[in-house]
Amino acid sequence: MNKFFKCSAVAALALGAATQAGFAQEAAASVDPAEHTVWILNTLLFLIGGFLVMWMAAGFAMLEAGLVRSKNVTMQLLKNISLFSLAAIFYYLIGYNLMYPLGAWSIGTDETGGYLGAFGVAVLEAVGIGADSADDIAYASTGSDFFFQLMFCATTASIVSGTLAERIKLWPFLIFVIVLTAFIYPIQASWKWGGGFLDSQYGFLDFAGSTVVHSVGGWAALAGALILGPRLGKYPKSGGVHPYPGSNLALATLGTFILWLGWFGFNGGSQLAMGSIGDAADVSRIFSNTNTAAAGGAVAALILTQILYKKPDLTMVLNGALAGLVSITAEPLTPSLGAATLIGMVGGVLVVLSVPMLDKMKIDDVVGAIPVHLVCGIWGTLAVCFTNSDATWGGQIISIVIVGAFVFVVSAIVWLILKATMGIRVSEEAEIDGLDLDELGMECYPEFVAAKA
Amino acid sequence: MNKFFKCSAVAALALGAATQAGFAQEAAASVDPAEHTVWILNTLLFLIGGFLVMWMAAGFAMLEAGLVRSKNVTMQLLKNISLFSLAAIFYYLIGYNLMYPLGAWSIGTDETGGYLGAFGVAVLEAVGIGADSADDIAYASTGSDFFFQLMFCATTASIVSGTLAERIKLWPFLIFVIVLTAFIYPIQASWKWGGGFLDSQYGFLDFAGSTVVHSVGGWAALAGALILGPRLGKYPKSGGVHPYPGSNLALATLGTFILWLGWFGFNGGSQLAMGSIGDAADVSRIFSNTNTAAAGGAVAALILTQILYKKPDLTMVLNGALAGLVSITAEPLTPSLGAATLIGMVGGVLVVLSVPMLDKMKIDDVVGAIPVHLVCGIWGTLAVCFTNSDATWGGQIISIVIVGAFVFVVSAIVWLILKATMGIRVSEEAEIDGLDLDELGMECYPEFVAAKA
Amino acid sequence: MNKFFKCSAVAALALGAATQAGFAQEAAASVDPAEHTVWILNTLLFLIGGFLVMWMAAGFAMLEAGLVRSKNVTMQLLKNISLFSLAAIFYYLIGYNLMYPLGAWSIGTDETGGYLGAFGVAVLEAVGIGADSADDIAYASTGSDFFFQLMFCATTASIVSGTLAERIKLWPFLIFVIVLTAFIYPIQASWKWGGGFLDSQYGFLDFAGSTVVHSVGGWAALAGALILGPRLGKYPKSGGVHPYPGSNLALATLGTFILWLGWFGFNGGSQLAMGSIGDAADVSRIFSNTNTAAAGGAVAALILTQILYKKPDLTMVLNGALAGLVSITAEPLTPSLGAATLIGMVGGVLVVLSVPMLDKMKIDDVVGAIPVHLVCGIWGTLAVCFTNSDATWGGQIISIVIVGAFVFVVSAIVWLILKATMGIRVSEEAEIDGLDLDELGMECYPEFVAAKA
Repeated sequence: MNKFFKCSAVAALALGAATQAGFAQEAAASVDPAEHTVWILNTLLFLIGGFLVMWMAAGFAMLEAGLVRSKNVTMQLLKNISLFSLAAIFYYLIGYNLMYPLGAWSIGTDETGGYLGAFGVAVLEAVGIGADSADDIAYASTGSDFFFQLMFCATTASIVSGTLAERIKLWPFLIFVIVLTAFIYPIQASWKWGGGFLDSQYGFLDFAGSTVVHSVGGWAALAGALILGPRLGKYPKSGGVHPYPGSNLALATLGTFILWLGWFGFNGGSQLAMGSIGDAADVSRIFSNTNTAAAGGAVAALILTQILYKKPDLTMVLNGALAGLVSITAEPLTPSLGAATLIGMVGGVLVVLSVPMLDKMKIDDVVGAIPVHLVCGIWGTLAVCFTNSDATWGGQIISIVIVGAFVFVVSAIVWLILKATMGIRVSEEAEIDGLDLDELGMECYPEFVAAKA
Repeated sequence: MNKFFKCSAVAALALGAATQAGFAQEAAASVDPAEHTVWILNTLLFLIGGFLVMWMAAGFAMLEAGLVRSKNVTMQLLKNISLFSLAAIFYYLIGYNLMYPLGAWSIGTDETGGYLGAFGVAVLEAVGIGADSADDIAYASTGSDFFFQLMFCATTASIVSGTLAERIKLWPFLIFVIVLTAFIYPIQASWKWGGGFLDSQYGFLDFAGSTVVHSVGGWAALAGALILGPRLGKYPKSGGVHPYPGSNLALATLGTFILWLGWFGFNGGSQLAMGSIGDAADVSRIFSNTNTAAAGGAVAALILTQILYKKPDLTMVLNGALAGLVSITAEPLTPSLGAATLIGMVGGVLVVLSVPMLDKMKIDDVVGAIPVHLVCGIWGTLAVCFTNSDATWGGQIISIVIVGAFVFVVSAIVWLILKATMGIRVSEEAEIDGLDLDELGMECYPEFVAAKA
Repeated sequence: MNKFFKCSAVAALALGAATQAGFAQEAAASVDPAEHTVWILNTLLFLIGGFLVMWMAAGFAMLEAGLVRSKNVTMQLLKNISLFSLAAIFYYLIGYNLMYPLGAWSIGTDETGGYLGAFGVAVLEAVGIGADSADDIAYASTGSDFFFQLMFCATTASIVSGTLAERIKLWPFLIFVIVLTAFIYPIQASWKWGGGFLDSQYGFLDFAGSTVVHSVGGWAALAGALILGPRLGKYPKSGGVHPYPGSNLALATLGTFILWLGWFGFNGGSQLAMGSIGDAADVSRIFSNTNTAAAGGAVAALILTQILYKKPDLTMVLNGALAGLVSITAEPLTPSLGAATLIGMVGGVLVVLSVPMLDKMKIDDVVGAIPVHLVCGIWGTLAVCFTNSDATWGGQIISIVIVGAFVFVVSAIVWLILKATMGIRVSEEAEIDGLDLDELGMECYPEFVAAKA
């Protein structure tokens, strides 16, 4: 999903098609109907992909609402719709041009590698443009690209909210979201997808964002979880781990299905083109591979929890499916169906194993976002090497490390500043009563008696 | 979204593209492959837009199910699926041709302005048509147009059900839905989108229906609310307003996300064409503007409720997002991203301010549909003047007034007739016990203890 | 939806379009841009159709989660996500080539009629293919076809899980799913859609699978229900039927809306082509007919339950909508909107009448899947004869019988083997306590008091 480099390939292809059709002499390149159709189909891919990824925001909201206790559901819902809205605004105001400077780097150049993109609000093409006034006739409409890319930025923020649930204050969390979506995400994303130094110097490959989106969300969540601390009573002094079962597994399952559906847009749209035989077939491969990786992750978690705990664990199966999806995201195109299934299965195994590991380290991740998005994000990024000969272990590993270090350190600094200034954690009383009553005065299920809290 | 006038523009464009490609001499206009592709892409836009708007029916159902008390949820669900089904049937039987007479006005003409459309059931094109037998080769398939337009009619009915929840009888409500979807909605919609007098004489601009759909639903709901009266105990004689919190805010949030997603089809599909560079880019602008307006509305409501009430209010944020969506619906194309955000933010503010105003007037609107769809529908229709120089304040205002007066008066008459004949309100006992037990004998959550009613 | 025979028609059409455009001499058929566009649009139809049908898996999960008692919801959710995942893997490993042998029948030939398809895993086209290396340039990408067809296979399995809810053990159920999706479904589907003997010898018509998908799910469920027996206490010795109301009708309604939405992909995608005027118009007809049939089924059930029971029944209305959808699935193209509405209405009536009939026969179908998918699947298959003159009563009936006998007998054998070896039914204690606590140790709604079980 590298807008910068993709363009030239598409242009060459479209020109080729025009020539083959034998009317290239009569038609100037800018008004070639074949090229128009390619552009329109690419645009359409972004619109469909974009609305599917937007739908993932609902998936995260439902997944997280189902996995927190009933006394914190309203707050979790509020955080999710608010973070998505803030991401939309700040990616427009700052993030988009920071991520896609299109040569206008503030630090660096396209040739030597860019480090910091351009500042300025996103500007769409004028109303009713013709081919001559399209920003990039070999690519797709800027509006569709903005719409699509925004959704990836918002996804990154959605990942963070689950980990920190049930104890973080609303406003500091939302301020972090603004920093994440306006600066942290776009800057590191520019290094790969904006044609920056990870792309040009390290040959880093990350098709739809196992690292650029998912592990980034995971690193930001990890930094937050360490600084915020675990929920009260989660790790009792007497030892062990106190389980806090999710209040509504039907919602959590719905959220998982929504995410699964949305992921077709996430990975499929990242082909960035659908106007040629090759691109359309590739999008189809990606859809199929994405689906089978999710299935592999779910089945692996199903079998493994049966073996380990004698009883299959629904929440692990849900996270297994998501783990499969994250794992295939760095390279959903080159694997065969069989390889994609295996990549997803390894993801499912990793989640089942890393959830208790996090608990041993007393890192309290309410919904399992770190195992799913960070652990499997790293796994998926490494797994590119198995099926794509253009990938190098060195390039993948160093990029994982650079992105991880940048996001973790900057996030930690932001969390620490927020902690020192306005505080990031609700009072003990609010945490015991529930954030809904204490912080919002509004319960999610006011008529249903909570028997156990 | 004016099918009538749109056609010629599309035709001109398609012809132009064919000429540019230099094979216009050899290909008769009716078999021009470029024109075929345009027609297919337009049709595809309607199909995608249509299924997204259909999905909004689920959004309304979930939003309303979440905002009513648990004793009335089954009834609210039943009303929502029934109203959508009846809309589908009666728009087919009567509404479609009443809305799109295509020159065959029962009262009026295309030239002088139409007032009452044609009577007759909707008829689709034959199976396996060729270009010569398409109803309109410069537009899109009739089936896709019918499918798309139907969903707008159904949306109008969905708006009404929320306001009148928890006290209206099922059957009179459904009879009103039939009148609304067969007559009221199509007649007034024909005045604008069927090429009628508001379009031809007043230059009224309403891209996707802030007035034609949303305020119409709002006016019908307002008439119903006034005649039906508030819920028992909502406005106690001792003064003040008794809050009846929604029973399931997770469902309400899900419903809002569904509506947000569906709105891309609602506004994007209303471009009515996707087969040219200009149309595809415009659809992309619309997607982006629609999203950012929703985000603006949500953020405005978030901040304003924090300021006014010291605690952010999730239901206001949900309605704020919807307010942003309604506000941008009359003109999602011409605003810049910044202007669209502001238009949505004003919508969010209007909702937060008008909800208590309605309560002061003792108009009991269970889900806030009147603030969202009527108030913001009017605001959005006026806001067209800020970004589209073709709009006039006079044309917009007079059209708002004419449509509002027509819908409010006719709706009031229908509600009064229903009240006088079969009665529209359930018994006091049924209202206290809940409509689910009393009217349907079926609870939505039969196993969950209702602690407070 | 007969991939085998459809291909040639599409090829002819595409070639025709190229000739009409007058540049056929210069362009070799394999690089003709018009043909490319057709192939891309067909591929896109499969991708959109496929993700919509995938979404139906969520619909079944929500519908069933809402209709079982709260003590069994976690198990029902686990079954649904697991069955979908297993279907994805086993259709890839075995089912796809068994269903579409493309001439390589293990038993039979294309000419004389095929009976058993080819064995081997599904293989997608290579990355970045050109027109010359597409598997079938006159059809669509193999990846998109696999993705789309897989979802139909998974749907068949989803149907079974609802009927057998609340008493079947997890693992035997999942083993049955593997047999169903790897063998039973693909073998019988090959007889029609793979170009096998029902297609070539009997002229069987089943556009999107009233028989091939829905009745197959129904037959497998019926065999299971008979062998598994009813839930404890469902049919008391004292006579009568003990109602077990669903625990969450909001989820059941959401599931129905999801299925309704997904069905546009199910039926619309089964046109298998969208690259010509005729195909795109046909897809539009199908969308419109599918919608109106669902509406007809819902309204019929609404009115009929009002008449029969004096109170409308939401679960019947939901099943009525689904009944309409199943009924139109065998022929969503040829009916007029009016005929489609009637076909759906008959489906709605059949469901309302057959639910109590099943109870009289003491066949315990928890969600009503047998009335919806089997009874209406048969009705829909017969109804083809009313609107499609290519259908014969003999061909339809004999195909219904052959498919039904095959699926019922083989399913019964598999269920009996599972019963004899590992057992298929949970213990009485587990059934009374709920499968969630006993089998999984995880409740869906752990904080909500269950007042009545």
